[in-house]
Amino acid sequence: MTDIRNLRGVVPYLPTPLTSDGAVDEGALRRLVDHLIGEGVHGVTPLGSTGEFAYLDFAAKERVVIATVEAAAGRVPVIAGVAATTTWDAIRQARRWAELGADGILAVMEAYFPVNEDGVVAYFTAVADATDLPVTLYTNPNFQRSDLSLDAIDRLSHHPNIVFVKDASTNTGRLLSMLNRTEGRIGVFAASSHITAAVMLIGGRGWLAGPSCLIPRQSVRLFELCEARQWDAAMELQRELWAVNQAFARFNLAGAVKAGLKLQGFDCGDPAPPQRALGPDEVAVVRRVLERVGAL
Amino acid sequence: MTDIRNLRGVVPYLPTPLTSDGAVDEGALRRLVDHLIGEGVHGVTPLGSTGEFAYLDFAAKERVVIATVEAAAGRVPVIAGVAATTTWDAIRQARRWAELGADGILAVMEAYFPVNEDGVVAYFTAVADATDLPVTLYTNPNFQRSDLSLDAIDRLSHHPNIVFVKDASTNTGRLLSMLNRTEGRIGVFAASSHITAAVMLIGGRGWLAGPSCLIPRQSVRLFELCEARQWDAAMELQRELWAVNQAFARFNLAGAVKAGLKLQGFDCGDPAPPQRALGPDEVAVVRRVLERVGAL
Amino acid sequence: MTDIRNLRGVVPYLPTPLTSDGAVDEGALRRLVDHLIGEGVHGVTPLGSTGEFAYLDFAAKERVVIATVEAAAGRVPVIAGVAATTTWDAIRQARRWAELGADGILAVMEAYFPVNEDGVVAYFTAVADATDLPVTLYTNPNFQRSDLSLDAIDRLSHHPNIVFVKDASTNTGRLLSMLNRTEGRIGVFAASSHITAAVMLIGGRGWLAGPSCLIPRQSVRLFELCEARQWDAAMELQRELWAVNQAFARFNLAGAVKAGLKLQGFDCGDPAPPQRALGPDEVAVVRRVLERVGAL
Amino acid sequence: MTDIRNLRGVVPYLPTPLTSDGAVDEGALRRLVDHLIGEGVHGVTPLGSTGEFAYLDFAAKERVVIATVEAAAGRVPVIAGVAATTTWDAIRQARRWAELGADGILAVMEAYFPVNEDGVVAYFTAVADATDLPVTLYTNPNFQRSDLSLDAIDRLSHHPNIVFVKDASTNTGRLLSMLNRTEGRIGVFAASSHITAAVMLIGGRGWLAGPSCLIPRQSVRLFELCEARQWDAAMELQRELWAVNQAFARFNLAGAVKAGLKLQGFDCGDPAPPQRALGPDEVAVVRRVLERVGAL
Repeated sequence: MTDIRNLRGVVPYLPTPLTSDGAVDEGALRRLVDHLIGEGVHGVTPLGSTGEFAYLDFAAKERVVIATVEAAAGRVPVIAGVAATTTWDAIRQARRWAELGADGILAVMEAYFPVNEDGVVAYFTAVADATDLPVTLYTNPNFQRSDLSLDAIDRLSHHPNIVFVKDASTNTGRLLSMLNRTEGRIGVFAASSHITAAVMLIGGRGWLAGPSCLIPRQSVRLFELCEARQWDAAMELQRELWAVNQAFARFNLAGAVKAGLKLQGFDCGDPAPPQRALGPDEVAVVRRVLERVGAL
Repeated sequence: MTDIRNLRGVVPYLPTPLTSDGAVDEGALRRLVDHLIGEGVHGVTPLGSTGEFAYLDFAAKERVVIATVEAAAGRVPVIAGVAATTTWDAIRQARRWAELGADGILAVMEAYFPVNEDGVVAYFTAVADATDLPVTLYTNPNFQRSDLSLDAIDRLSHHPNIVFVKDASTNTGRLLSMLNRTEGRIGVFAASSHITAAVMLIGGRGWLAGPSCLIPRQSVRLFELCEARQWDAAMELQRELWAVNQAFARFNLAGAVKAGLKLQGFDCGDPAPPQRALGPDEVAVVRRVLERVGAL
Repeated sequence: MTDIRNLRGVVPYLPTPLTSDGAVDEGALRRLVDHLIGEGVHGVTPLGSTGEFAYLDFAAKERVVIATVEAAAGRVPVIAGVAATTTWDAIRQARRWAELGADGILAVMEAYFPVNEDGVVAYFTAVADATDLPVTLYTNPNFQRSDLSLDAIDRLSHHPNIVFVKDASTNTGRLLSMLNRTEGRIGVFAASSHITAAVMLIGGRGWLAGPSCLIPRQSVRLFELCEARQWDAAMELQRELWAVNQAFARFNLAGAVKAGLKLQGFDCGDPAPPQRALGPDEVAVVRRVLERVGAL
Repeated sequence: MTDIRNLRGVVPYLPTPLTSDGAVDEGALRRLVDHLIGEGVHGVTPLGSTGEFAYLDFAAKERVVIATVEAAAGRVPVIAGVAATTTWDAIRQARRWAELGADGILAVMEAYFPVNEDGVVAYFTAVADATDLPVTLYTNPNFQRSDLSLDAIDRLSHHPNIVFVKDASTNTGRLLSMLNRTEGRIGVFAASSHITAAVMLIGGRGWLAGPSCLIPRQSVRLFELCEARQWDAAMELQRELWAVNQAFARFNLAGAVKAGLKLQGFDCGDPAPPQRALGPDEVAVVRRVLERVGAL
């Protein structure tokens, strides 16, 4: 396995398979990880948004990390999500995921009351200080109640353990601003809300995204075209795959990924209630877009 | 203790005293509860927003409920906060708080991915079904990622265990709409974002609010003037006390309540990091408003 | 006519009657003004939100002011709306409305690009400097792209011509904050988004609102109960009238007022396209609430 | 001049030069248009956002169109902005701009009260029906109080006169969704909030943007690299030019363009008050970015 600090490529955001009584279905998770690595993905990320981190307690998260690390078996890096409202809880998660063998940390800050920028920087710095693992900052202004400003990212980019940022806004220009501002100190990964070929063009390293669970082979192909700088061929494939992102943006993200995986033979259960599973019409939309891109 | 379903009055939102390593300071919590009941409040609410529910895990919440119930000792009802992202977790909290002796439930729905109205209703219904305790719905559109529409409140008001709603928007007209719409099926409590005398005038039963921890005696006096329908005298006092609400709206709510209590001799520690404690200038503002209303 | 600086009471926001080709229907406007004054209102406000100021050019606004001043005939004050994106245009309107006989100015700032607080204060100061007429500041954060902060209102309250503020947010607490902050330098009027009896209780002087066009007599009765400090009787009537406000909040405001007036025999045409007139189901809702309060 | 329906390239959003008393400075506008065409731009757009359409009345807008058409003198197409709150006013502008010799219409819908999707479609359809000129839809969710949904754009794309869309959101993925959805019926232009090279990669035709007034030659060079599908060279230049967009996003847009032009010897006055001119520190930022890209 290459040094994770050199990581480039397709890193699916794993769903967390759940049984009907709320337990983590570790068997389903292992099968999925094994399948995705077989399809050529360059890493896996448990406990991102798609992994329903906001719906799991510490013990459930532990099960997820253990199962993912074991299933990956050193073939690709495991970048495990640390998401908390308190610095105490974030440090505890980061240290435990390191003990359990995670190769990197995806750091998320949850908030209830607003936190000022110094507080945001202190939180992420504490996560980065907690272990030796490389840290990917994650910001998703749609769902989180805090955001990482360019200034905050710039300040954090000087920390030796903070190496990547994944931005899940829809503002692609912000990614170029980050790259310009941090002058090589931090690498940028796209989310499913960005056109990944465009992010690669502007200097991105790949993407951390839920839909890649459903179209791993196609995603790897797109990545390879970008790496070869065959931009026109990349765009042709990208245009086709964008329909998958569009479909997913319309639905509950965890629900859509779980619905699509079930169609592909990977039953990961339903999203945690009160989130609801996709209805038949919505599943039909997912089926259609997967068929169209050859993923069913 | 009167039947909680007839509750009217001042019900302080308790802060959660924390030690510097993140443990619940149960001694400080007991002293505070005892003090507030001595000042005449009509109930206490642990694990509301001010109680930093979003920053505590299940075990810490358990300690809070145990300490509050023991300190209240049956003198006034304890309405304990249930706040979760999953229905599973909410049910577990509700059942455990009931076992521990809580007299009522304050029900909060947290969300990461959006949940549609049927999901919102299902969540609160599940909490109400979980025990025999009366339930107060809590909605705070400023900090929560879900809201309770008038339609949802109307549907929920038919549940025999759902008896009150506390609305922490700043939209006072919405409270009158709720009262008109639910035709007596649900009682309305104000939050610190509303002018409590105005809410009493339109038919409210009292208020569940953090600032009442700092001005319990004054709050009870205001409530009594409202109950006696001495509206002009009530407004005179209200105008004075509003300065406290205004000050608190400017700061981190938990931080402001903790700063004020420390000035009054109740050291409850700092808010959970990365929230920060109030700085000296902010403490000076809190000191000034408390002095002005005779609470220091 | 009393000095407008002492104004208290019900001041309807007049719709602007329009013919099907977009001309101001001055006859309809005169009839409406005459009717409302006959019902006992204490002033009239042309060119507020309900008056569709955002949909009229300078010449059309002139027609509206002329017709309103003539119809009012000195019986009640006419507070004419000045709304502009540029200071130049605002000054021009203010001076012209003064020439045409308006008794006061309702000042609105429109914006496209954001304007900082000094710019906002400069705009309203320029309007206040433009004539000798007393000025009512108007802020409506729902529809305007600028807002008046408490600090800005405080600064403006020291201007000798700035005497009132009308706040159309839904945040009733903000009105009490304004009153506390400006210490008598500025009087507060409610909008239809506030419970007017509650605003009177906290020290308001009345309300400037569209729905009063439809329930002028009932509004005056409510005002008189408040002035007599018969708060419980006032609330009884208020509870009933609130249904009118609720209905109007659901629809296009100009459309709802015009639909209701048509039912009462005052045909003011439709709102300016692409706004649409209320559909039959919506008109039925308006009819129902007007019947319920005896206004049909 | 090629058929505007085949237009591709760099189309600067012209500022509106204003004298200190609010008159249009037609001489300054003519000099600027002549300069830009000399630098190789492919069209010009008066009365866009940067042109302060929201701050000009009909007569002023007329002066702008006349001066621009005369200065362009048929060398490049003039796409004149039509922006209104009423359908009546929009039609009047469109017809008049056609009479005055504009080659195309940039259509903007302003709103005060919300308008539903049918109303939005009706407005743009009326503009498209008003003349034979090709229409560019313009949507800017940051400043306008209405938005064009994908469904609305799809419906409008079937109108024979609606040929382009300019999207000034920051959501680049939305542009690809538009292209996929309208299947060639509508061409897409970027705004300054998008990375233009990325928009070209996904199938864009060019950009309509304010900053191009300051870096016309560099913009044309970037466009030509994109047209030649030399994506890596294009990105190198794009990365450098992005600093200009970033600087402009921080300031009042009209103010920033006017400040930059003054540095380049084109005095266009200040933005209309209460907007303010850039202060010395802000001008220094503009100077720095222009120097860095060789535009000073």
